[in-house]
Amino acid sequence: MSGLLGLDWGTSSLRAYWLDGQGAIRETRARPWGIRQLPDGGFDAALADITHGWPPLPRLACGMVGSRNGWLEAPYLKLPADTAQLAATLVSVRAADGLPVHIVPGLREPRGPDVMRGEETQLVGALALQPTLARQSTWLLPGTHCKWVNVSDGGVTDFCTLMTGELYTLLLQHSILGAAIGDAVADEAAFARGVIAARDSGAAGAFSRLFSARALMLDGALAASSVPDYLSGLLLGEELRSVVAGQRYRLDGPVQVIGDAALCARYRTAAHHFGISVVEPLADAAAHGLWQIALSRGLVGNGSTTHRALPSC
Amino acid sequence: MSGLLGLDWGTSSLRAYWLDGQGAIRETRARPWGIRQLPDGGFDAALADITHGWPPLPRLACGMVGSRNGWLEAPYLKLPADTAQLAATLVSVRAADGLPVHIVPGLREPRGPDVMRGEETQLVGALALQPTLARQSTWLLPGTHCKWVNVSDGGVTDFCTLMTGELYTLLLQHSILGAAIGDAVADEAAFARGVIAARDSGAAGAFSRLFSARALMLDGALAASSVPDYLSGLLLGEELRSVVAGQRYRLDGPVQVIGDAALCARYRTAAHHFGISVVEPLADAAAHGLWQIALSRGLVGNGSTTHRALPSC
Repeated sequence: MSGLLGLDWGTSSLRAYWLDGQGAIRETRARPWGIRQLPDGGFDAALADITHGWPPLPRLACGMVGSRNGWLEAPYLKLPADTAQLAATLVSVRAADGLPVHIVPGLREPRGPDVMRGEETQLVGALALQPTLARQSTWLLPGTHCKWVNVSDGGVTDFCTLMTGELYTLLLQHSILGAAIGDAVADEAAFARGVIAARDSGAAGAFSRLFSARALMLDGALAASSVPDYLSGLLLGEELRSVVAGQRYRLDGPVQVIGDAALCARYRTAAHHFGISVVEPLADAAAHGLWQIALSRGLVGNGSTTHRALPSC
Repeated sequence: MSGLLGLDWGTSSLRAYWLDGQGAIRETRARPWGIRQLPDGGFDAALADITHGWPPLPRLACGMVGSRNGWLEAPYLKLPADTAQLAATLVSVRAADGLPVHIVPGLREPRGPDVMRGEETQLVGALALQPTLARQSTWLLPGTHCKWVNVSDGGVTDFCTLMTGELYTLLLQHSILGAAIGDAVADEAAFARGVIAARDSGAAGAFSRLFSARALMLDGALAASSVPDYLSGLLLGEELRSVVAGQRYRLDGPVQVIGDAALCARYRTAAHHFGISVVEPLADAAAHGLWQIALSRGLVGNGSTTHRALPSC
């Protein structure tokens, strides 16, 4: 049997894909076993569980599993970086079952400086699904640490991280803005109000208006239960304001997006207030990226059926 | 005996002053009893303890004690607001000992919107100590929620809150930036590096560079123990960048400052990178402000020795 077991292994979750010999997804499994919350037995136990009953195919992982606090540290590649370069720089760790797990490297942007792990693989998958975007495209990957990415000539040429998702969680859970507001109630108008406040904050930026989330609530001008959506709008709006002001990403055409559908929809709504068009998100980009990288490395394809040894393993 | 008992009662701490008949500080006491962490017995127990043994003088409090979650909610006054207006709008709560505690109102800025409680009293005190600044001056009050304030013709005409201090604590304690960095070591160069990175972030703003605190550390270009000072520089620098870009405060002359001496010194160092001059901080501004407001209201002065009843009590 040919195919690949792909692992998208992040900080807070683990997703596994069984891909057939043509790279189609046969089965997907998810566990809450990010590298910060592994089960007893650590990486080996998590791997054994999530791939239980699947055939002994080559295994390729991406994401924080390759970070310093992961299973094995994989390097960060310089920009520009494409599929072939990622595939050429896999590292491999031998699992408890004696067989290797290959890990995709991350990318490093020197000016921020900035780093990514996992998103490079999602981008490879997305570009394989939509090859016309390889020449020139702008990408948004929302999440805890949102990435904005420039792609040119089939490779990643620039990117930056905005900690929008993490700041939202921190401010709601731990700051004065989230104090005594009770349960959140979805409020599209409050979200839009936050986006517009951020957009109109000018070069000063919306962090100078964060406290309005509390002042409006104290005024009775914003329901306590709407503070989360207002704050979400303010932070997504600030991200968009900052990206527009930075003039680093081409925003005149549609922005491609990869991520959770509901979160991508929030970005699409917010982007509308900036005259920016955000497309519908792609699904399973990581699985397709892992397949492409495995193909490029020769782990799969051309009838490959067994664990091919890598020099670094 | 004449005089005043002044209470500067914030979210996380309580400070009490015994002022003599001329408004000079006879004694100061501090307790960790902010309104969010009161002792058993609440506000009354805290008051009885911190004023134990002091004479039964009129009592005037400012700060979050007058907030919705405080002892009694005091209103927010419109801008511009001066000493006489603050004094005219005191509210009063009767303590367990049967005598009143008067509370200074806060201020509300309509555009943010934004609010302050406590800083208005510090400003009254600072302007009384330096009357030449009353005509026109720019003020910085660093802290958990840093305030920038315009004073004109003896009153507060504009202000805004920057949550710099709270964001610093949140990011270090709860975000990926503070993960696995061990104990902080003071590093002036790292602080300056953060300030300059923020200053040079342009209109995009330094929140687009927050993740550099982690990327530099992963690169080995920033010691893990220096991440706190780098992050502090980045956040203070962003605050200054934002205030400069907003063009809301006059920065061509010296900026006056009230607050903790060490924190004010950090702001002074950071401001130097922006060509902004920040003066030495004033001490005990709140005590002097409470005295001025008490004088204006007639709670003290002209031989006043007893608890004068207020209509609102």
